[in-house]
Formats: sequence, C-alpha cells, structure tokens
Amino acid sequence: MNRLNKTWAETRTTVNGWLMLPCAVSAEAMAAHGWDSLTIDMQHGLIGYSEMLRMLSAIDRTQVVPLVRVPSLESGIIGKALDAGALGVICPMINTAQQAAAFVRAMRYAPQGGRSFGPVRPVMRYGSGYVASANEDCLAIAQVETAEALRNLESILAVDGLDVAYVGPSDLALDMGYTPAFDTEEPELLAAFEQIVETANRHGVVAAMHCGSPAYARRMSEMGFRFLTIGSDVGFLLDGAARSLQAFHGSDEMGKSFR
Amino acid sequence: MNRLNKTWAETRTTVNGWLMLPCAVSAEAMAAHGWDSLTIDMQHGLIGYSEMLRMLSAIDRTQVVPLVRVPSLESGIIGKALDAGALGVICPMINTAQQAAAFVRAMRYAPQGGRSFGPVRPVMRYGSGYVASANEDCLAIAQVETAEALRNLESILAVDGLDVAYVGPSDLALDMGYTPAFDTEEPELLAAFEQIVETANRHGVVAAMHCGSPAYARRMSEMGFRFLTIGSDVGFLLDGAARSLQAFHGSDEMGKSFR
Amino acid sequence: MNRLNKTWAETRTTVNGWLMLPCAVSAEAMAAHGWDSLTIDMQHGLIGYSEMLRMLSAIDRTQVVPLVRVPSLESGIIGKALDAGALGVICPMINTAQQAAAFVRAMRYAPQGGRSFGPVRPVMRYGSGYVASANEDCLAIAQVETAEALRNLESILAVDGLDVAYVGPSDLALDMGYTPAFDTEEPELLAAFEQIVETANRHGVVAAMHCGSPAYARRMSEMGFRFLTIGSDVGFLLDGAARSLQAFHGSDEMGKSFR
Amino acid sequence: MNRLNKTWAETRTTVNGWLMLPCAVSAEAMAAHGWDSLTIDMQHGLIGYSEMLRMLSAIDRTQVVPLVRVPSLESGIIGKALDAGALGVICPMINTAQQAAAFVRAMRYAPQGGRSFGPVRPVMRYGSGYVASANEDCLAIAQVETAEALRNLESILAVDGLDVAYVGPSDLALDMGYTPAFDTEEPELLAAFEQIVETANRHGVVAAMHCGSPAYARRMSEMGFRFLTIGSDVGFLLDGAARSLQAFHGSDEMGKSFR
Amino acid sequence: MNRLNKTWAETRTTVNGWLMLPCAVSAEAMAAHGWDSLTIDMQHGLIGYSEMLRMLSAIDRTQVVPLVRVPSLESGIIGKALDAGALGVICPMINTAQQAAAFVRAMRYAPQGGRSFGPVRPVMRYGSGYVASANEDCLAIAQVETAEALRNLESILAVDGLDVAYVGPSDLALDMGYTPAFDTEEPELLAAFEQIVETANRHGVVAAMHCGSPAYARRMSEMGFRFLTIGSDVGFLLDGAARSLQAFHGSDEMGKSFR
Amino acid sequence: MNRLNKTWAETRTTVNGWLMLPCAVSAEAMAAHGWDSLTIDMQHGLIGYSEMLRMLSAIDRTQVVPLVRVPSLESGIIGKALDAGALGVICPMINTAQQAAAFVRAMRYAPQGGRSFGPVRPVMRYGSGYVASANEDCLAIAQVETAEALRNLESILAVDGLDVAYVGPSDLALDMGYTPAFDTEEPELLAAFEQIVETANRHGVVAAMHCGSPAYARRMSEMGFRFLTIGSDVGFLLDGAARSLQAFHGSDEMGKSFR
Repeated sequence: MNRLNKTWAETRTTVNGWLMLPCAVSAEAMAAHGWDSLTIDMQHGLIGYSEMLRMLSAIDRTQVVPLVRVPSLESGIIGKALDAGALGVICPMINTAQQAAAFVRAMRYAPQGGRSFGPVRPVMRYGSGYVASANEDCLAIAQVETAEALRNLESILAVDGLDVAYVGPSDLALDMGYTPAFDTEEPELLAAFEQIVETANRHGVVAAMHCGSPAYARRMSEMGFRFLTIGSDVGFLLDGAARSLQAFHGSDEMGKSFR
Repeated sequence: MNRLNKTWAETRTTVNGWLMLPCAVSAEAMAAHGWDSLTIDMQHGLIGYSEMLRMLSAIDRTQVVPLVRVPSLESGIIGKALDAGALGVICPMINTAQQAAAFVRAMRYAPQGGRSFGPVRPVMRYGSGYVASANEDCLAIAQVETAEALRNLESILAVDGLDVAYVGPSDLALDMGYTPAFDTEEPELLAAFEQIVETANRHGVVAAMHCGSPAYARRMSEMGFRFLTIGSDVGFLLDGAARSLQAFHGSDEMGKSFR
Repeated sequence: MNRLNKTWAETRTTVNGWLMLPCAVSAEAMAAHGWDSLTIDMQHGLIGYSEMLRMLSAIDRTQVVPLVRVPSLESGIIGKALDAGALGVICPMINTAQQAAAFVRAMRYAPQGGRSFGPVRPVMRYGSGYVASANEDCLAIAQVETAEALRNLESILAVDGLDVAYVGPSDLALDMGYTPAFDTEEPELLAAFEQIVETANRHGVVAAMHCGSPAYARRMSEMGFRFLTIGSDVGFLLDGAARSLQAFHGSDEMGKSFR
Repeated sequence: MNRLNKTWAETRTTVNGWLMLPCAVSAEAMAAHGWDSLTIDMQHGLIGYSEMLRMLSAIDRTQVVPLVRVPSLESGIIGKALDAGALGVICPMINTAQQAAAFVRAMRYAPQGGRSFGPVRPVMRYGSGYVASANEDCLAIAQVETAEALRNLESILAVDGLDVAYVGPSDLALDMGYTPAFDTEEPELLAAFEQIVETANRHGVVAAMHCGSPAYARRMSEMGFRFLTIGSDVGFLLDGAARSLQAFHGSDEMGKSFR
Repeated sequence: MNRLNKTWAETRTTVNGWLMLPCAVSAEAMAAHGWDSLTIDMQHGLIGYSEMLRMLSAIDRTQVVPLVRVPSLESGIIGKALDAGALGVICPMINTAQQAAAFVRAMRYAPQGGRSFGPVRPVMRYGSGYVASANEDCLAIAQVETAEALRNLESILAVDGLDVAYVGPSDLALDMGYTPAFDTEEPELLAAFEQIVETANRHGVVAAMHCGSPAYARRMSEMGFRFLTIGSDVGFLLDGAARSLQAFHGSDEMGKSFR
Repeated sequence: MNRLNKTWAETRTTVNGWLMLPCAVSAEAMAAHGWDSLTIDMQHGLIGYSEMLRMLSAIDRTQVVPLVRVPSLESGIIGKALDAGALGVICPMINTAQQAAAFVRAMRYAPQGGRSFGPVRPVMRYGSGYVASANEDCLAIAQVETAEALRNLESILAVDGLDVAYVGPSDLALDMGYTPAFDTEEPELLAAFEQIVETANRHGVVAAMHCGSPAYARRMSEMGFRFLTIGSDVGFLLDGAARSLQAFHGSDEMGKSFR
C-alpha cells in the first residue's frame, strides 16, 4: 500500500506537500500533482477531525500517500487518524525514548503495540489485506524539534518500530535560542541536521526535513535527508496572490496594499 | 460601504480575486492581500450556500469588498447572497434586457425593485445605515457571455440599475465557435471586447473582464475595462504546486508526474 | 400530526417563533419552550439546506410544529423542505392567483397537486400514516406582502388548498411606500391588515401576522389573526446582550460601546 | 470516462445503487461493491450541495460511475452537479418536449447546448480530456413519471441529446391514480412500462427503471430496461436493522418494538 | 431517564446497535427500530465531535438510550459526550483499577467524582431533574479487551461506580495472540468470557459483549451477558448491498465485482 | 493586540460574554455589542474544533477580544485554540501548581514555555508582529474551581506566566458540598472569593468570576474581580423566548407550556 517504503528502499528521496487548509477540494488540487505524499496538518493547520477525514478521502484514491500530523502525542487522535485511512502519522514533540515508545505503541497492533482494532474505512479503501500489513505500512514519524530531543537522539531513534525522524526546524531553532524560521543558515542548526541524518542512518531510520523552498530541500537532500517537505497549500496561495497583484500593479505599489 | 463605486468614480481600475475553494481559511488568506474585491464563485466554484456564508464572514471585516457569483438568475439565491452580506452579485448568462431587468429587480428594494426585506446580517455587519444605502452599494453585475448577449448589448446595458457588465470570455468564445479559454487573441473576440467597453461607457456602466493573467489584465485595463479579475485561489494553488515540484525535480522530470 | 390545524379549528390562536440562526442547538433551545410552531427561515435567515435539515431534526421530536420558509417559489426547495420533515411551508411573494396555485401544486401529492413522491424521512419520523395525511397536514402558507398581492387578494385566497395567508409587514410597508418595519401604526397598513383578516375569514383561510413584539401580537390577535409570530432567536440574543451590558454598565455608558 | 455508455453499446444491462444518506462514508461503503453506477439523490434524499460534493469526491475515484439526481429542472443546480464531477444527471418531472430540451441545453456545452464553462474539479479529476468529451460522457437522464409525460413520450424521447428515460414508478402510479409504490403489478402500469421500453428503443434512448428489489429488477431487465436501480443505502440500513433485531428476538416480538 | 438500568434490574437483556457512519440521518433510521440503546462510536467509527452531537440530537428524543464510545480515556471528551446528552460512555482500554477509577471520576459529579458542571443541553433535553440523577443515569461502561485487563479483572470491577464491563472481543483476541474477529470459537477466549460474566455478576456489574451476529448474541445472552451489540450501520449497509447485487446477478458473478 | 491587558493596567474592569452555541452567526450577533471579550466555551458549550475556528473568524475582526475555554488540560487543543487565533485560553480544573505550570508551558513559546511554532492564521489576522508579542498577548487563564485548588492557591498563583485566576463558582460549590449554581450567597463561598481576590492581587494576577447576572457581577466587581462574565448566548435565548411567550400569554399560562 505505502509506496514511500519502497522508494526509500531504492534509496530515492520522496517529496511531501503540506496541507493546512481545512478543505477537501484544495487537497484534491494538491493531489493532482506529482507528490509522493501529502501531509494533513492537524497541529498547526486549521484542520479538525471532520476535515481531516474528508481530506483523506479526497486524496487517498490517487497515487499520493496520505499522512496526518496529529496535534499531540494522544492515543485517541492517533488511532482516529489511522482508522480514517492515514498511511502514516507525524507526531510532534517526541523528546524522549519513552515518548517515542508510547507513539509506536499507539501506531501498531499487538504484539508490536497496543493500537485498538477496528479499521473499517481502511479495509473499505485498501482491501482486507490492510490488517496484515498495517503495522508495516503505517509509518511512525517522530518529530525531532527540541534541544532535549537532540540530547536523547540515540535512544529515541533506537526505539523499535520508529520509521522516520522528521525535523521541525522552526521549533528546533526557537528551542535553541534562534528565531523560528525555515531554511536556516545557522551553523549550530546545520550541524544538528547533520547529526540527525548520521544518527538516523545508523539506526535504519529515514531522516526527514520540513523545508520552505525547493532549493533548500535539494540541499537537504544532498545532506542525506530522504523525505522532504517543500511547500504548503497556504504558502502557494499567499505567494500566488502576492505575485499576481505585484505583476498587475508593478512592484512599487505592492507593498502598501498588503494587509 | 462599497469602495468599488468610489474607485471607479475616480476612473481608477479595480482588481478582483476569484474564490472557487469552499474554504473560509483560504478566503482569509486571499483577503490578507491587497485586492479591491474578492468574488465567491457559487457557479463554477465548489461552493454551496453554507460555505459562501462562512467565506463572506471571513472576508467582509477586511478592506476587501465581498462579491458573490450566483449559479443562475434565480431570485432566491440572489436574495440569500445579499442577506449573507455580499456587496455585489455577479449573475451569469444575462442575454436579454428582460433578464437584466429581472436581475436588477432581485437586487433592489422597492421602489427600484422587489428585493424582499430582512437584512439581519448586513445590519449586524455594516450598521443600520445599510438599509438606506443598499440599493446603491450592492452592485448588480451582469455577465455578458453569449452571442445573443452581444446582439442585445444596447438594450441590456440600457436597463436602469445595472452597474457592471462582466465579460465571461470562455463562455463567449465557446458560444461564438472558439475554444473556451482565458486571455484570447482571436480578433473577433477582441473586437467584441472593444464593443463592450464602448457600449458600457456610453451607458455609464463599468466594463469588467475575467482574465487568466496579470499581463493580459493590464492590456484589458488599457482597452478600457475598469474591473479586472486576474487570478483565482485554485489557480494559485495548482500553479504553486507545479512550480515547486518542478524546481525540486528539475524541469525534465516534471511532465511525467502530473496527475 | 399537525396540531396547528386542530388548534385553529377550536378557534384558538397559535404562537410561532422565528429561527434565523443556522444552528440546531439554538433551535433546540427555542423548542424547549412552549411554542405552537417554530419556523426555520431559509429566506432571510442565514440557513441553507444542510442546516435546515439539522434544525428540523432537532425540533420535530418535540411538541412544536416545524415549519420552513423557503427562499422563493421554486418547486425543488419546497419539495426538499417537505421531504426533510417540515409540516408546513411559508412561501414568500405570492402576488397572483397563478403563483398561489403553483405553490399549492408543489405542496400536494396528486390528485390535488404534483409533489413528487419519496418521503423517506417523514415516514421514519411520523410513521407510515404520513403518506395518507400529508396533503392535509402539510400547510401551504402564502405570504401576502406586496400591493399587487393586496389587489389580487380575493383570487389568491380563493385558490383551493391554500391554508394560511401570512402577512409580511416589512415588505408590504416597503412596497406601499413606507419604511420597512414591524408593528406599524400606519393607518393604510392597518386597514390592509383588516382587509386581509376579513377576506381570509370569508375563504376559510387562516390569517397570520409577523410581529416584532408580544404586545403588538396581542393586538393583531384581537384583530382576528390566528397565527402570530412574536419574536426570533437572533432578536432574543441581541436584546439579551444589550440588556445585560446596559444593566452592568448603567444606561449612560451603553450607547458608546455598541458596535 | 463514462463506462455506462460502453456497457449499453454492448447491449448489457447496468445496475445502479441509490444514495439518500447525506454521508460520504456511507457512499464509500456502497462504492466498495460492484455497482455500475451510484446515484446521489438530491431530490428525495437528505442531501444538499455540500454533501453531494463530498459524496462525489468519495466515489468518483472508484470504478463506479457517479450520477446525481437534481431536485428540479433548474439550470443552476444542474451546472453545479456537473461541475462537481457528476457523469450524468437525472432530472425529475420531464413532462414535455420543451422541458426535455431545456434539460439537454443545461447539460451540454455549445453548440449542442448552453452549459456554462468552468469545469475545474472535473479537469482535476478526469484530466484535460474532460472538456472535449463532456457532451458525450455526461448523461442526460430524464424522468418519465406522469401521465402527461406518457402522452408526450414520442416528442420527449425525440429530443436530440437525451440519453436515458428513467421511469419513476411511484410518481407515475400516484399520478395515474394508484398507490405510490415500487415493483407494481398493476396491468396499466406494466403496459406503460412496455410502451416506454418500446418507444425508447425506437429513439435510441436507454430505458431505465427504479426498482425496489433485485427480483423485480431482473423482470424489468427481461422487459428491456437496461439501467436498473435495485436498492438504496437507507433501504439496506432499515432492512438490516429489522432483520437483525428480528433474528435476535425471534419473529414474534419484532412487530411491537418498531418505532 | 435511562431505561437500561431498569431493564437490567428486571434481569432482562438489552440489545444495542452500533453507529460508525458520521451521519444523523442514518442514526435516525437506526433509531426508528426497536433498539434498547444505540452507541455512537467515536473511536473506530468515522465520527468527530460535531457529528456525535448531531447524532445524539437525532436519536435522543426517541425511546432509544443514546451511548457514546470515546476514543480514549481523556477527561475532556468524556465530559463533552455527557454534556452533549449521552446517557452512558463506553471507554476503551480500561486495563487497570486505576484507569477504571479515573474513568468513573470523569463520569460523576462530586462527591462521587470530578465531572465539571455545565449540563446545558442535557437540561434542555431531559429537564432540570437531570442534575440530581445524572450520576445514576449516566452509565460508566469500561471495555475489557486486553490480557492485562483480564489479569486485573477483580480490581477493575471492584471500582465503585462502574456500571458495565464491555468485552471488546477483537482487541482481546489480538492481544491474546489470535486473529482479531467477532463471534470467536476459540476455547481460551470463550473461557475468558465466562470469567468476565462470573466476575461481573459477583461485583454487581452488567457484562456486555460486542457481537457480529444476532445468533452469536443469543448464545452470549445465554452465557449471562445482559447488554449485547448485534450489528452496526455500516455492516447492514455493506451486507445489504452485497446481498442485492448477488440476488440480481446470481451468485456466480458476485465475487468478481467486489471492489 | 490584546486590549484586556491594557484595560486591567488602567485598573478598569472588563466584561466578558459566554458563547455555548456552535454557531458563527450567533457569535457575530454577540460581537455586535460592546463586550470587552467573548469566550468560546469548548468544555460545556456544544462546540467542537471546526465550530470554534469559524466562531473565532467571525469575531476576531471586531473590537472584541476572542478567548477560548478548552475542554481539559491537553496541550494539543490548547495549541490548536491559539493557532486558530484565540488571544487567551481558559483552562478548567487547575488544581495544583504543577498543572498551572503545564498550562503556562503549553501557552508560551520558548524560552518561557514549549508551545510549538506555526501561527499561520494569527499572522494572517494580526500581522507578523504576532510572533514577537504572542507570549504577552495570549492570556493564560486558569480556572480555580475545587477545594483542592483553594488549598493550593498560593502555589498556583505563584506560577510565573499565569495571567488570570478564573473562578468557576458552580464547580467550586459542588466540590465544597453545595448545590452547583451561579451567584451564590453561601458565606463559605463568598469567603473563598474574597480569598481568591486577595491572593491574586498579591501575585499580580487578575481575578475573574463567572456570574449569572449583571447585578451579581457588579457586586463581584466591587469585591475586586476585574474580569466578569455576565451572561451567555444560550441564556439570552432561553430568557428571551420565555419572556416573550409570557408577555403574549400572560403570566398565568406560562408555566404549563414550558417543556
């Protein structure tokens, strides 16, 4: 079911799009393009359960792998995202091995974990084979985004069943005393990124990075990240509106009309 | 309430954005930019009444003037769009003076028309002065988009109370035997556009054009159109996704991954 | 099913509440009180089909008779309101006998009319007896609210199957050259009200009035109106908020803080 | 895009399921089975525009052809159903050739009709080829369901561009003086069905029948109907609940507990 | 308010239906039948808060007792389910006496527990008597569905205020090394069921079982379970569709068309 | 951004309205009045995430400061409320200093706390300055509503970053053995209120009280509470309906018709 695993096994990089708008039609529009995966962001996106379900339904019939970022490490919403049909969950703020283990436990059926059984929609969507392969196909993606997580990196990435370590660069920057931003040039942060790639590779975990531009993502790909977010629906929208207004008015008049 | 009237009175051009996504958050994102107006498209957009109401509420507190395109010349939905807070309605397929008159009748309170009284939300939003100025502030915008409408142009634009003649270039092209598209170079269509501007000016009606790009919109502005649509939410989204994926993959790989 | 008919047969007056908020919970709160009927206003209320259905479901298990005002005389939405479970439809702007007949036709199954058959929810809610009694129980309530309707009053009220003539005083005032308002004291309007009661009585039609206050409604009851709207959800809300703020601040400070 | 045309060309019968619940998940559950088509019923189903869009999105990625029944012959909602992605529209109460022609006009782009251009979602879903083939792929399905329609059958079915004549047996029964019901044995109605098949065949129109059971549908298939509705979501639900309760309690106790 | 307590006191068995579709209309359809209770499943059903509220409102005016299964042992959602009007909450994964006690605490007002006070909708629905009897009427139903829970059974069921022990047979099977399924014949599982009934009886707790068929439920009733789930909305839907298609096509052709 | 801080600094009292209806239009109606703040109650109100977002969008363009009460101390929903645009969060059941510290941590960006970074909507709404001032402008409002909280009052209010101590009088009454009610006259409770004001003043925390009437709120203002809730949407609605029916029927008949 989940083509990401296969792509990474071929040591190729996958490209992820980010969905923050609570809208199944914009999700469909994004899915019309050649993303490897799309992530429905229930944490910072403006998306509740009902919208997440509709967005999953809108994209999971395409070739794009549907992922969900949950708001917090809470087993209820992790189970609901999986039962809604997500083939992977990104969990924010995994700062300790204990949290990583709790996350994996919520993601896996026994005996690997304690996910409760009842995948009605996944079986309708992916067929009855879902049950047997869910533990393998549903990716456990832990966000590494604090100084504490960096300190605990070895033990976190050693947790059995963790598939991907996803860097949240804004939160990591903020927590390490820098301005929160994508596509940083801070040497300390770039060094942390290198450390994460190296550690992840040693543990057989895929390293992932949230980027603000394709150019930076290419650089991160060269650094060894194999799962790269390169843009979001709301970013494309704001950027497109700004470009078009600027093109019409000429650049001089643009500034004053914003907001 | 409606700054469009004032801007046109100063013979300046206004820029309109187009909303097709059924989403109040994307409407808010669009409204964060310097549009003169935003149009919620209930005809070809994926937007029903409930979404239209939410989108209006999301944008009508900003400086942007909120407009609604209704699905058809039906008095029920025209009244609902106005009572939801739209400061103008675009009505498709106004092909005869009789239709134009019916449209104006649905837009205006007596004695100018027969709009039913009950503006609960507009009064909450714009204050009690809404009642007195609604007939002036709520723009009646008729779409000119068929060969029949061109033939009846004089009588349509002579209808008292019509504010704007909005060219639907795709439908006009299709109806005149051309491929439906924005930003046409067909001489017959360009000649029709000139005719519309000239006739509108004679009748004190604002000529408006739906464009697919800022560049074409500038040209139409020079031709005399004073209300110009230059892009849509879904267009910005699709374009942004395509550009980003292309930038990441390099242009050679892009084509094959689309859809 | 419909207790209004029975109450009127006993020559008693019924009291109707008005719902403009698109909210099933506020509808439930209203239904917790002793209304004879509640009307879901799809015309000037902020209510689309989906909300209307939810509101009907929220109130139709109580003792309150659920009515719907549709946005216009369009057979599609009249049928949908009935199939959603409304036991009566208020139709705006019935200005001619022809319109009254079209309205009744949309409300009644053959042979009395041409309502299409498929009452899935009404049968779930009211039982299989619904089919046999629907033509009697689902009230056809025509709004009399223009000078034209007054001129055509005899022929409109003579239309077989029309149950109630509902005065829309704001629209009637506006159409006759007065300021649109509830609870008028204009002699010409009061005379029109008398005429409506008298004509309705002669034709066996119940006369109904939309009032802005219980006091005026009592007066109208004495004039012979037997179906009286005395307030709305949004009115109670705005009034309650204003009273409470005034009571806290004292009356002197109130004015400046409004809006 | 539309496999129904192809199946009928091979003179095979297609099986249609009926959706009345306003729910994308139940639509997905239905689409998990081997239907040739599923019809979203906006007329008697409890479904508004927003739910219709979600349901279309939930089923149109499967092999099932998505159809929509609109509430009435109103061009606005017909256009919205098509722009939402329906590959066919069932229109109720087509009683005259004039109505049939108006229906076809609303379904087809120029020069065959006057459908307005703007298929954003269909192009995202079916690709850019949608535009060229839409006039052929989007089926115009007229309901024959009154005595008047029977009298006008020749002229209705002669209207160029009409694809399917869909019998509404309940409304037809009601209009001809019988109890409204599916799966009738009334000789006069059966004779009417024969007449419809025969006339449709002569005009190259597919005859369709709304049935209440698979057994009756087989009989209608033998009579010559090639598009057969055999059941609905709400029917399966009510029937399944009744059967299960009966099986648990034993048949004697069932009756008393219903409703 | 809650008839389940009374029925059990008479040592009769109650029958529960299961709701997984996020749809108030399908909930109403289910409630039209003679269920003792219906459970809205927020854990494995496709149901968020907004849908749960609508479904409760749709069923709680009928004779059916409305229950909610929450996604996890989290006090926020338990309180929200109760304040929405549920007369009982099923909580998954109660594996220890400590968890059982936390669950009961979230269900009860002081002094029995720590439920926060604010039952606006329950008072609108059930009257002001709700406050006094809520602690008795709102059932605390703990799921026993892991090997750990079996080991802790005595202490879990000894927790004061626990009303029902609800067996989740799929999760229990999975956790004990068997294939997750309803209606098991595994001797070890059947023995566990016997143990649960016996322990529950000793502690004055009602034993409940989630079954996949009425036949198995009858067997479980004989074993001593007094609260039996015998089917679900989505099950009835899938089953009805499969049966109908099979009946139309004949059994030979059925297999190939599924999915 | 947040005018409450400024008002309190001037030692003036602020008045808060309470929103329990899941409806953006009723929220807009409330915001049309002169409230200092409005609180969207996700705990006891009938409001889920999607409705909260819509309500925030409806009110946050007005002068009224938008607050949200979350269902429980869970970091996911606190983050979602802030990222949806709330300028303050009321958290129920803060009974210990540890809970107070966890609450503040969820409210503040590093280094003051651990709120995750991604304020897309707040930046669209309040501008890019939001990031720098969010820690100051987003109020952390802890509910003091149990005997345990009273015992721990000193340590709770000493937690750095706590802005407001909000008394929940119903829960406090219930927990201390009294009937849960607003506007109590119990000496023990009034003494507790005095203690809370005094302790809050010493710690530079604003004391807040949930009142059931403006009159009681004035008294509480004199006692030293500076943030006063004086009424709710659902209260105004129920009260307005009762008053109007009573005024129409006369007081004698009112009682019998209620519920």
